Amino acid sequence: MAQGSWIRRMFEEGAVLKQQYGEENVFDLSLGNPVVEPPVEFRQELRKLAENPLPGMHRYMVNAGYPETRAAVAEQLSLETGITFTMKEIVMTCGAGGALNMVLKTILNPGEEIIIFAPYFLEYVFYIDNHGGVAKILPTDEHFIPKLNVLEAAIRANTKAVLINSPNNPTGVVYSENLIHQLGELLHKKEAQYGTQIFLISDEPYRKLIYDGLKYPSPFNHYSQSIITTSHSKDLALPGERIGYIAVHPDCGQREDVVSGCIHCNRVLGYVNAPALMQHIVRYLQNVTVSIAAYQTKRDFLYDHLVEMGYSVIKPQGAFYMFPKSPLEDDVVFVRELQQHRVLTVPGGGFGSPGYFRIAYCVDDRTLEGSLAAFRKAAQKFNLC
Amino acid sequence: MAQGSWIRRMFEEGAVLKQQYGEENVFDLSLGNPVVEPPVEFRQELRKLAENPLPGMHRYMVNAGYPETRAAVAEQLSLETGITFTMKEIVMTCGAGGALNMVLKTILNPGEEIIIFAPYFLEYVFYIDNHGGVAKILPTDEHFIPKLNVLEAAIRANTKAVLINSPNNPTGVVYSENLIHQLGELLHKKEAQYGTQIFLISDEPYRKLIYDGLKYPSPFNHYSQSIITTSHSKDLALPGERIGYIAVHPDCGQREDVVSGCIHCNRVLGYVNAPALMQHIVRYLQNVTVSIAAYQTKRDFLYDHLVEMGYSVIKPQGAFYMFPKSPLEDDVVFVRELQQHRVLTVPGGGFGSPGYFRIAYCVDDRTLEGSLAAFRKAAQKFNLC
Repeated sequence: MAQGSWIRRMFEEGAVLKQQYGEENVFDLSLGNPVVEPPVEFRQELRKLAENPLPGMHRYMVNAGYPETRAAVAEQLSLETGITFTMKEIVMTCGAGGALNMVLKTILNPGEEIIIFAPYFLEYVFYIDNHGGVAKILPTDEHFIPKLNVLEAAIRANTKAVLINSPNNPTGVVYSENLIHQLGELLHKKEAQYGTQIFLISDEPYRKLIYDGLKYPSPFNHYSQSIITTSHSKDLALPGERIGYIAVHPDCGQREDVVSGCIHCNRVLGYVNAPALMQHIVRYLQNVTVSIAAYQTKRDFLYDHLVEMGYSVIKPQGAFYMFPKSPLEDDVVFVRELQQHRVLTVPGGGFGSPGYFRIAYCVDDRTLEGSLAAFRKAAQKFNLC
Repeated sequence: MAQGSWIRRMFEEGAVLKQQYGEENVFDLSLGNPVVEPPVEFRQELRKLAENPLPGMHRYMVNAGYPETRAAVAEQLSLETGITFTMKEIVMTCGAGGALNMVLKTILNPGEEIIIFAPYFLEYVFYIDNHGGVAKILPTDEHFIPKLNVLEAAIRANTKAVLINSPNNPTGVVYSENLIHQLGELLHKKEAQYGTQIFLISDEPYRKLIYDGLKYPSPFNHYSQSIITTSHSKDLALPGERIGYIAVHPDCGQREDVVSGCIHCNRVLGYVNAPALMQHIVRYLQNVTVSIAAYQTKRDFLYDHLVEMGYSVIKPQGAFYMFPKSPLEDDVVFVRELQQHRVLTVPGGGFGSPGYFRIAYCVDDRTLEGSLAAFRKAAQKFNLC
């Protein structure tokens, strides 16, 4: 616990600052907790169910989730990928956190390795450790893209899976179709070399938050040993409700065992099932998303200002994070400097990449605008221009 | 997975029978999935929030849960026990399953033992195993009550906790105040003998489902190293919504570490937080319960009939289960016999106590009445009278 989480630490220090200076004078860019409200379609479905409850709508259902909800997810995935999914490939979960733990518990034998790429979402390391796995962390290039030659050298006989996260937290980078394709080819080659199965786990909670008219390149179209984990925390702005799902490629080897294993783990890990009421609602919202344009405007606003001030930033094309280079080698000192000016961010070290810092821009415009003065002061102090 | 769960197996075989004979001709007493709907107060709160949503009511909150909800739980526990609880001792969870996993991950070091009593809720064994613990299973007496001399002999230096479940699943037995008191004394004595801390974990999802005017004897009043795990699955009939909590005794040794550990585990086990909307609702329903009288009437109906037919049954005083002696030594054969007559129950072996079978009577009266013919036929076939 002492290792802790920088995100949480900033959250707590931020709470103290807010008490001291007033909520409106602290500019909190530390947490991926969207201020946007769920889409109007969500409100409508919730109201419909509250006014005309279905009999038994809060009871246990099968551990995999309601067949109707699983079928709706399958239909949406079929539309997005052109591959035919059915409910047999879908398991509803308590968010992407639940989904990842279920998948990892299902596939891991003690000591097997899961490869992840830095910078990474801190929780991955905990999740892998929960189930006796070993997290093998690989560096990325200067654009935060996995280096395939490094990956090739790192895969061994006990590599159980490669876990990717695009659009990425903390960088906002979206992996290209070409990269996903080459990644699939490489994994095939390594499977043949070792006579093993290597899963590609794609953690996609930001899949629908994608800008500049990009189309999301799904790993499902490039590698059949793929499993996706995701949630409606970001695309429907429901992070507190813990609703997500697992989808397994229809052609995945041992698909039935993998799916049954995930369903079993939903039970034995104590999640039991995804919250019932949310399952009833998201069934009707598979093609609904919060306003992407609003997020893209926030990205443009912040990116343009930071670059103009002299910060070095890879322009994100998805999610709602930015991961600029820290003007100081020590990212913690730099984050503390911003904190002096009541702007809260997270040091890159919290994501396995010291020398950077993360900004979460899923905040209201007042907060974003209010933060600029501090970024400018820090840029001047450390001679960025 | 192959070990599986008898409950699930019966559930699946039941589904086949229902397809074959029609839902109304199969009498399913295999699952603790209450047919009752949540109390009217729940409907009111849900409707209120659906019609007048609070800003940000579906966002992340602190991992421990909303302060207001934790304070409401603390107030109710203070009322029930006469001990002063505050929100600092409460963590909101994804049901009792989430709660138990969080507690076990927090307190267990690899190889340490958790003592449970047979018959036991099957999931306990999985939960203990999830976190590297060892389940030490002790027998109970002919009334399904723990034998303290056996417990005394079983406690060792690496005993981390004793896990009790009263009202009990699968027997419906409620432990007496006297037993809880003696249990507390014994644990104190053993703590002194080994110089260790031994937790008493009380899993209490059925605490409020208690009959015959009994008052629930809380372990909190008899042992300060107590932690309770519970949910609103049964008392508010919300099993699909995954809403529960952990409460730690205010005088528990290392209380702050235990509570912080549980909060941390809420995060790293991937639950993250208890579902937000349900937290908003149960805040106002801490003193609300489904109709106890209705369950008691069902118990009386079934118990009286079974005893009259010659079955040997310990009369349950809580929960909604009965655990009669199987007329055949092989409980699986007996359960199969009932299944022939389209009545679904679960063999005692599924709870670590072969030679018995479990009936869940949280069903509608039609199902209960419809099951009697099969019980009577089986009683006659095996010469119970």
